[in-house]
Amino acid sequence: MVTICPSLLSADFSRLADEVQDIEKGGADCLHLDLMDGHFVPNLTFGVPLVASLRSHTKLPFDAHLMVEHPETYIEDLAKAGVTYITVHQEACVHLDRVIQQIHEAGMKAGVALNPATPVSTLSCVASQLDMILVMSVNPGFGGQKFIPYALDKIRAARTLLDQAGNCQAVVEVDGGVNAKTVGAVKEAGADFLVAGSAVFGAPDRAAAIAALR
Amino acid sequence: MVTICPSLLSADFSRLADEVQDIEKGGADCLHLDLMDGHFVPNLTFGVPLVASLRSHTKLPFDAHLMVEHPETYIEDLAKAGVTYITVHQEACVHLDRVIQQIHEAGMKAGVALNPATPVSTLSCVASQLDMILVMSVNPGFGGQKFIPYALDKIRAARTLLDQAGNCQAVVEVDGGVNAKTVGAVKEAGADFLVAGSAVFGAPDRAAAIAALR
Amino acid sequence: MVTICPSLLSADFSRLADEVQDIEKGGADCLHLDLMDGHFVPNLTFGVPLVASLRSHTKLPFDAHLMVEHPETYIEDLAKAGVTYITVHQEACVHLDRVIQQIHEAGMKAGVALNPATPVSTLSCVASQLDMILVMSVNPGFGGQKFIPYALDKIRAARTLLDQAGNCQAVVEVDGGVNAKTVGAVKEAGADFLVAGSAVFGAPDRAAAIAALR
Amino acid sequence: MVTICPSLLSADFSRLADEVQDIEKGGADCLHLDLMDGHFVPNLTFGVPLVASLRSHTKLPFDAHLMVEHPETYIEDLAKAGVTYITVHQEACVHLDRVIQQIHEAGMKAGVALNPATPVSTLSCVASQLDMILVMSVNPGFGGQKFIPYALDKIRAARTLLDQAGNCQAVVEVDGGVNAKTVGAVKEAGADFLVAGSAVFGAPDRAAAIAALR
Amino acid sequence: MVTICPSLLSADFSRLADEVQDIEKGGADCLHLDLMDGHFVPNLTFGVPLVASLRSHTKLPFDAHLMVEHPETYIEDLAKAGVTYITVHQEACVHLDRVIQQIHEAGMKAGVALNPATPVSTLSCVASQLDMILVMSVNPGFGGQKFIPYALDKIRAARTLLDQAGNCQAVVEVDGGVNAKTVGAVKEAGADFLVAGSAVFGAPDRAAAIAALR
Amino acid sequence: MVTICPSLLSADFSRLADEVQDIEKGGADCLHLDLMDGHFVPNLTFGVPLVASLRSHTKLPFDAHLMVEHPETYIEDLAKAGVTYITVHQEACVHLDRVIQQIHEAGMKAGVALNPATPVSTLSCVASQLDMILVMSVNPGFGGQKFIPYALDKIRAARTLLDQAGNCQAVVEVDGGVNAKTVGAVKEAGADFLVAGSAVFGAPDRAAAIAALR
Repeated sequence: MVTICPSLLSADFSRLADEVQDIEKGGADCLHLDLMDGHFVPNLTFGVPLVASLRSHTKLPFDAHLMVEHPETYIEDLAKAGVTYITVHQEACVHLDRVIQQIHEAGMKAGVALNPATPVSTLSCVASQLDMILVMSVNPGFGGQKFIPYALDKIRAARTLLDQAGNCQAVVEVDGGVNAKTVGAVKEAGADFLVAGSAVFGAPDRAAAIAALR
Repeated sequence: MVTICPSLLSADFSRLADEVQDIEKGGADCLHLDLMDGHFVPNLTFGVPLVASLRSHTKLPFDAHLMVEHPETYIEDLAKAGVTYITVHQEACVHLDRVIQQIHEAGMKAGVALNPATPVSTLSCVASQLDMILVMSVNPGFGGQKFIPYALDKIRAARTLLDQAGNCQAVVEVDGGVNAKTVGAVKEAGADFLVAGSAVFGAPDRAAAIAALR
Repeated sequence: MVTICPSLLSADFSRLADEVQDIEKGGADCLHLDLMDGHFVPNLTFGVPLVASLRSHTKLPFDAHLMVEHPETYIEDLAKAGVTYITVHQEACVHLDRVIQQIHEAGMKAGVALNPATPVSTLSCVASQLDMILVMSVNPGFGGQKFIPYALDKIRAARTLLDQAGNCQAVVEVDGGVNAKTVGAVKEAGADFLVAGSAVFGAPDRAAAIAALR
Repeated sequence: MVTICPSLLSADFSRLADEVQDIEKGGADCLHLDLMDGHFVPNLTFGVPLVASLRSHTKLPFDAHLMVEHPETYIEDLAKAGVTYITVHQEACVHLDRVIQQIHEAGMKAGVALNPATPVSTLSCVASQLDMILVMSVNPGFGGQKFIPYALDKIRAARTLLDQAGNCQAVVEVDGGVNAKTVGAVKEAGADFLVAGSAVFGAPDRAAAIAALR
Repeated sequence: MVTICPSLLSADFSRLADEVQDIEKGGADCLHLDLMDGHFVPNLTFGVPLVASLRSHTKLPFDAHLMVEHPETYIEDLAKAGVTYITVHQEACVHLDRVIQQIHEAGMKAGVALNPATPVSTLSCVASQLDMILVMSVNPGFGGQKFIPYALDKIRAARTLLDQAGNCQAVVEVDGGVNAKTVGAVKEAGADFLVAGSAVFGAPDRAAAIAALR
Repeated sequence: MVTICPSLLSADFSRLADEVQDIEKGGADCLHLDLMDGHFVPNLTFGVPLVASLRSHTKLPFDAHLMVEHPETYIEDLAKAGVTYITVHQEACVHLDRVIQQIHEAGMKAGVALNPATPVSTLSCVASQLDMILVMSVNPGFGGQKFIPYALDKIRAARTLLDQAGNCQAVVEVDGGVNAKTVGAVKEAGADFLVAGSAVFGAPDRAAAIAALR
């Protein structure tokens, strides 16, 4: 059973409450939130005020993916905004264990995202502390990119790392180019959470699109 | 005649099309857009994708205030998104004349914003090149701050600088703590454009709030 | 009447309680504390834990000079450590008015320091908000430098700026190369607070050295 | 036989000569010196001038742990201050082999510290060049944290890496939360040098505390 | 069959056209170009304008080694300047897969360089995407350094990584201290491209020097 | 009498010795050297090794314009390379007086360059210490730009500032868009040193071009 997480980045920003309710009714399990700061990635999307404005419009859990430098500065405010998962980038955190502890202390679940080129083994020390590994299957920062095939090996490696750490309940999330064509291989490789952008929000029938991914 | 520019930062992010149309109907002249990157200021708000999503919902000109480092990286995309004014911070631009040229070459009007502590004289060289000086009357990055009284002197100094440069058509904009109490002094000091956040979007009757400022 | 502020940087770090008590008995008025972070200046000296350890050993007010980037991160802890004055560098503060407000909100007095090359006019907007202007008469970061003669003009300009802002109770402090030879000109130029390093801590009779400066 | 290295960070900064002599008499083997710059870690402690002031007061070797960016800038001055070991952070050194060479050329022993989340395998290339691997068992920057249990695996991995590189004389140091409760497991895992902060300086009888760790 | 790549850094900058033609006639296979920006390494050498000026003077392929931060900003201009290989540093690229894609999209071959301390395993994810791994056998930034012996193990590891990724046509390049003494071991370890600085440009008979390396 | 300083940036980098000798014979007074690091400006040109290679080929004094961050790191090596003037950017130097002192201590003359938007008054404190003010009449980083007319006012202001500081022997240099059309106004405004790029190196008869400027 996979968890389908449509990404707000592909929604219509002019009417987000409607968009979010639409995918909730369509069967989505979670709302993926792509915070970008124009520094870690060359794109600036949105931050905490926008996230907070959506909390009252949906019951979907919020899955915040922080493509930002210094992600620790947003933890407290994201907790107040009702976020369930915070995922930070391995490449953005010199003190990664501390950030994971801070997310947990704020009462949320902690994920770590890996850019395509970053080996899963960089998480070997903290594997037992994680609630999620997010395998990027495109380079973060832009929509509309193609799925990177070698990410499938990383999904398998992430699952193995978590299991060997005795952390079977932690999940593997995949983000980038997940659509009807690629979803089979992604699930087979062991992904638990699937982020979908245009594959859901860009579809004429979003409920059908979610069902197709599932 | 002042130009009233409600700031999107105080709107409800979950239904922005409605919010923008509401203030347009209420008599606003311009939409002020506060882009913040979490680096120049310790708050991350929104970027180009959100701005672009609003263009088709209103005829109001867009007045983008870039509280970001490296503002030059957003100029081209903001032009495509239908922005009229781009204002960059003096404190964020080592090559300020070049950024002003880039904004003009992209077909937009160029403003420069000054933090409260930054003297107007820092703009003495480029005064003839500007379409706007934005005097910050609070420290940028957060809503709900009180108007800094010494900003009134800066409004006057900005007006004088522009006039002495023979640039009478350039405007002086004021942002921060502008409300029914402070607006009289602000206008008397010579401000042309007034940014209003909670004073408009937070009012029960926005048309009345805009009329009151005017 | 000048205020004599011996600088801890010239004390014997292995026995600071004794050193501080010695200059207190010798007639010092204030203890000048040079925090350096190895980034704003190429020297790393000490931080809050050391400052806090001295509070119980002397009644002298603490005058902390922050030669650090991001000085706002230390304000709260320095208040708890019993500091009276916090001085930050104009060159280190993009949001200088905000930092001054933060120092005041923490219950302390706020100063701004100027590197030798930085004009006094950079403080023209905030002159009314300050409790102190610190004119550096050497380049910060190292002891044992010679007094820069053109600093005398800056002392006068700082005094004038404060007076014209109606802020007569604010003081002008001078730091760098102040000794028996230079002190006359420094006082004549209008300095209120004199920082002295080796001129006091390096003297065989510190009480005499303090008296000589006075 | 373990080497006990009390950390100066837990000493009374107002009387360091006394403190250092007290732990020397109490049987300490080495003095651990935590330089922090407020950038690599969010705390500013002390730098070379303080270290240098202690050299004449004790015969204990100095073990300097540089929690700073650009640690290479301090090597020469720490050598003059009589330091024996310099440990830099893997996460702070883009040119790690060069820094190790610089420490050796200055006549000192070279260690590399690993944040809790950083795998031991990041040192696989330089294992033969090291005199020490420092396994952080808390996140650096603050005292009073709890020992991270997964650090025990890293102690073992560090020992194995050094041995496989034929570098048996290099030592493994552990820093963070080492006390009477945790010391048994730490020694069993293969640690040679134990850093102790409050466990020694905070104890009523420091000689007894050192003996207990030993 | 090894490819000999003399490094322009050791040429006479006052007459580069002659120098380049001289080594072309002397039998060199490729011209190695060391771009340094004074930030990634503490030396500033040359950039695109100098590279472009040489293109018409030789038929040798250009092999550009970017010891710079933000190497992506130079890709397009280097393609226009007629460069064949662009090598970026693993340590300089947070988004390494994206940079490799950009180099390929610009029609060039993509290499990744590893500082001496950086493990080959950092490239495990992108091994199938590379045209070259450049093993640094000295620390980049300066000429005249001695070959680091442990680099031989890295040459072997790089070859193995590429082969296991099914990428047999990708090459292993070695840079630093390659000369008559070390070249035998370097070739035996599996290097395909040899960078030589003073060993070629500093030799009285460059053709003989190239032949000797070959 | 103006001093004509052709800029090496417009020369043919493949045969610099010839180029430099050509303009020396053509009557140039000085060689202007544009060091750019790809950080202070978005272009990387050349550094000390190239400068040093030219010293033996000409008697012209070298006038090095450092469009780099941290210019202090190059002072010592440029002195060894036989440079006469080092000009640093006001916008790149937090500790400007210290850099000026370092240039003087290394036996060279010190200039400060101002970007087009930077007021001359930023140099009011150090006016008495300077050997040169360099007024940029284009934005630094690229060739082929048009002269910015408001730079004429800055030339006058720079001359006035130096004279009022009693520093009449210090010179005013102008760089950017100086050619046959603009040179008259530039000289009339009071410039002493004229940098010319394509106006000299791009001319069919360089001696004639230099004579025309003169």
